[in-house]
Amino acid sequence: MTKLGRLYGLGIGPGDPELLTLKAHRILTTVPVIAYPSLENGKVLARAIVADFISPDQIEIPIPLPFSVQRSSQPYYDIGAEKIAEHLSQGKDVAVLCLGDPMLYGTFMYIFNRLSGRFSIEVIPGISSVMASAAMLGVPITYRNDVFTILPATLEADILRDRLSVADAAAIMKLGRHFAKVYQILADLGLLQRALYIERATWKNQAIIPITEVDHNSVTYWSLILVPSHNLPK
Amino acid sequence: MTKLGRLYGLGIGPGDPELLTLKAHRILTTVPVIAYPSLENGKVLARAIVADFISPDQIEIPIPLPFSVQRSSQPYYDIGAEKIAEHLSQGKDVAVLCLGDPMLYGTFMYIFNRLSGRFSIEVIPGISSVMASAAMLGVPITYRNDVFTILPATLEADILRDRLSVADAAAIMKLGRHFAKVYQILADLGLLQRALYIERATWKNQAIIPITEVDHNSVTYWSLILVPSHNLPK
Repeated sequence: MTKLGRLYGLGIGPGDPELLTLKAHRILTTVPVIAYPSLENGKVLARAIVADFISPDQIEIPIPLPFSVQRSSQPYYDIGAEKIAEHLSQGKDVAVLCLGDPMLYGTFMYIFNRLSGRFSIEVIPGISSVMASAAMLGVPITYRNDVFTILPATLEADILRDRLSVADAAAIMKLGRHFAKVYQILADLGLLQRALYIERATWKNQAIIPITEVDHNSVTYWSLILVPSHNLPK
Repeated sequence: MTKLGRLYGLGIGPGDPELLTLKAHRILTTVPVIAYPSLENGKVLARAIVADFISPDQIEIPIPLPFSVQRSSQPYYDIGAEKIAEHLSQGKDVAVLCLGDPMLYGTFMYIFNRLSGRFSIEVIPGISSVMASAAMLGVPITYRNDVFTILPATLEADILRDRLSVADAAAIMKLGRHFAKVYQILADLGLLQRALYIERATWKNQAIIPITEVDHNSVTYWSLILVPSHNLPK
């Protein structure tokens, strides 16, 4: 009987290839098979970040995902997971690339949930865009007893408002077309003065823009608002 | 006039030296001066993690911190920051080691707040113990629209209860002698079944213990409770 391969969920960080961990780099450069989500329109962000680390000898499994948010990704993950399972069954280790950290809003979880139990899985944590954004903005997020809340901008306005009103510090992700809603809530709560805006943190085309100058209609999904703590210790 | 050195806030991750980023590793192995917090009782955790990467040619600046929580650390950071400033003023780059991520409850912020404005500072994000714990526990933290809250166990019971009652997923850090309080709140909120306990995530002596079997009186500061989301996508 063939020994089964091991599945790696590989956090590759926020975008700068140098923000891979030593461990992710070692696994990425030694596994025989690499899998990654790709959009149907051909965009393959995760692979582009680590392109310099991939060798022509490695087998690649793109997992096409629907470009439209109207269609569920779940049947696509079914197909992707089965392709990965084939290689694992043949005894080959497979690393699935995942932007940021695999366990925090990561795409890897959909593969993880389909293959856990059947195969041995190891998750390699990655630098989240949240921490990368704070580093690039040059601002501490939390001190001591602070509560830190991470919120997707896709939430309903009432929930966003409630959670933001009690957080000492917050990060709001996945802004895109939800920016105007979030901006209004921050203004209502008196948080605009503290809020910082960053796009594509650590990418070559990273942009830091004063939040009052952001064009509400052209905000990318790859943007983040950080509301850092103001509980600076004496 | 001497060109000033650059100050690096170096996130070294949760404990496993292989979880340094490529960038942190590069800076750590090339800067002339390395600084790190050390406790008065001689414990130097951050340095121990990266000991294999430090060369005898590098200058080391330990920053002693009081062992007792009764005494403020702030005067100690004043002294440490001035020692670091001396080297920077002589044109030498200095890397300050910081467990986890420097901006998330990190000790680096106390150096950062004292020296920003005077010197050029670059922060290198690190793997937080939160993401490392989820990876080691093998459990996704958040999906899609989930709200994720990070809470220090040192908070008052009422605040912990309020925040936990509305979070889709949560991580509770710095447990130590606050474990019993947190345990009771999780039980009251019906969250014990979902809560996972881990000590010293990614260290050689890491331990994962069923939360109902944890000895309330011997919980280390280096422990974490994760309450993962139950909003598994269909």
